[in-house]
Amino acid sequence: MTETPDRPDADQPDAGPLDAGRTSPGAIVPDWIAVDWGTSNLRAWAMRADGTVLAEAGSDKGMGKLSREEFEPALRELVGNWTAARSVGRTGSPLRIIACGMVGARQGWIEAPYAPVPCPPLPEGLTRAPSGPDLAVGIIPGLSQSDPADVMRGEETKVAGFLAQNPGWDGALLLPGTHPKWIQVSAGEVVGFRTSLTGELFAALSGHTVLRHSVTTEGWDEEAFLAGVADGLSRPEALAARLFSLRAESLLRGLRPEAARARLSCLLIGTDLASAKGWWLGQRVCLLGAGELARTWKAALGAQGVPLETADAEAAALAGLVAAWRRTQ
Amino acid sequence: MTETPDRPDADQPDAGPLDAGRTSPGAIVPDWIAVDWGTSNLRAWAMRADGTVLAEAGSDKGMGKLSREEFEPALRELVGNWTAARSVGRTGSPLRIIACGMVGARQGWIEAPYAPVPCPPLPEGLTRAPSGPDLAVGIIPGLSQSDPADVMRGEETKVAGFLAQNPGWDGALLLPGTHPKWIQVSAGEVVGFRTSLTGELFAALSGHTVLRHSVTTEGWDEEAFLAGVADGLSRPEALAARLFSLRAESLLRGLRPEAARARLSCLLIGTDLASAKGWWLGQRVCLLGAGELARTWKAALGAQGVPLETADAEAAALAGLVAAWRRTQ
Repeated sequence: MTETPDRPDADQPDAGPLDAGRTSPGAIVPDWIAVDWGTSNLRAWAMRADGTVLAEAGSDKGMGKLSREEFEPALRELVGNWTAARSVGRTGSPLRIIACGMVGARQGWIEAPYAPVPCPPLPEGLTRAPSGPDLAVGIIPGLSQSDPADVMRGEETKVAGFLAQNPGWDGALLLPGTHPKWIQVSAGEVVGFRTSLTGELFAALSGHTVLRHSVTTEGWDEEAFLAGVADGLSRPEALAARLFSLRAESLLRGLRPEAARARLSCLLIGTDLASAKGWWLGQRVCLLGAGELARTWKAALGAQGVPLETADAEAAALAGLVAAWRRTQ
Repeated sequence: MTETPDRPDADQPDAGPLDAGRTSPGAIVPDWIAVDWGTSNLRAWAMRADGTVLAEAGSDKGMGKLSREEFEPALRELVGNWTAARSVGRTGSPLRIIACGMVGARQGWIEAPYAPVPCPPLPEGLTRAPSGPDLAVGIIPGLSQSDPADVMRGEETKVAGFLAQNPGWDGALLLPGTHPKWIQVSAGEVVGFRTSLTGELFAALSGHTVLRHSVTTEGWDEEAFLAGVADGLSRPEALAARLFSLRAESLLRGLRPEAARARLSCLLIGTDLASAKGWWLGQRVCLLGAGELARTWKAALGAQGVPLETADAEAAALAGLVAAWRRTQ
């Protein structure tokens, strides 16, 4: 768990009475709390009513590790300091918490419904999670698509935040990840989307097949990567055979594990780009992401000559949570 | 371990002195032993010089479970009865054992070389594995292909056996399995081949990704399977997205786990058939296999109107080992 006050004076004992966010020196008293609760991680922000961030905190207690009864304790463990300080200053009304992500999945705290697209990224209605009377936890709905069948939880909030930051933006958003998503946005609505298993496929192949002998868990070979994307793009149907070829090349020609890892990644991404061509060819595209994975997709699309905009995914998630909060006021 | 004498009198104490395969009542004394040693299983046949099978035995001590020093003990454990009986009757020359399969891999008993195609399925030369002086274990070479890089170990022996049973046969052989192989045979030679990771992909996806929540480990839905093969064939590039769709359909529409399992299988097989089209479209094709997996591939190809011949893979392996034995005489 980490806790990072966002202002230099956060630990100063002389923070004066004009600081509306605090009741005692050092204590953080939010008006509400924003929560992004995914499969792997939990992030929370102590917020003022005007959308200012007072502090943020995170833990690895993602939805994937928790049973139903463990959600409330995991949240209280992370934000307990904020809720304790607040109960000293004000009593009566519960502290509002707005949450998005897999916390609303069937295996989550409580199942939040899916809103069918086309629709705005933040449809009306939050699902109230069961908790003690001092908290009022509302979960943002996911989005669903009937044909091809598809679902999202959490990404809709990033889209809402991105649109709040970029009003009137039309085009395709790419969100890399375990399950990369292409999301078509037009006139403030999510028109359609497309999720693939590409990231999880990479993990399953490099960890649980014969390729684990050929692929390293670390390291990267940029040249091998770029050479391979076009290859995956041009013959996407040959994926399963090319995967075995990686093994054969490591046996016959001593293909280095770093190069094999980059080749595996580019094969999967190139194959995915081939079938998602309609989402990026001649489209306005913005990548919402960060880190190595975002750089990888950016390089792959860059090599196809796609002029890519980029935006910060975490900032977008927070902006989306703020937009959801504002609508309840 | 199982041991199955192939003749009704095998356990009869009155087997007479005319039975050249035996020295004492009930004992089996082979002239040589045929061994098919794959990643998962070990099979052995007690053989007469003329190619008659005296007995067979099998264990699950496949190459994947053994370190280098464990191969000889695993073999002796399986065929000890045969070698013990023989040493009573004849002494001097070691007992010949001919083996094929992953036993000759880099992680096997000893690495046997690859012969580059095009070449006959059984190129000259066996690799002698280190063992006690009473045994002479020779391992059949694998085959390799340089572009696309590909390798096989064990399948070449099945091809040799199939050709021994079907002299002059030309066409494409399909060997389903963890790593399904298409093998082009012409004028008694292996001209080229193509391995895919399809079977292992199925196992990794259904066991180590989010699909494990949607796919059962047992059961089958034939209708879902046949409907899906054509689908995978027509848009093979969309595999990674269709995989996520399976998850979404189980969430949104309650797709049954048996149907999801069949859909996953047909998507992978259909995708693979799409990229292997040159191997079966307008070709003479024979499927070398058995069991559920062979039925699945047969149904998939049958639905494309491919007139499929079939042959027994185990019989082909044994015939190939016999062919290798004959050449050493």
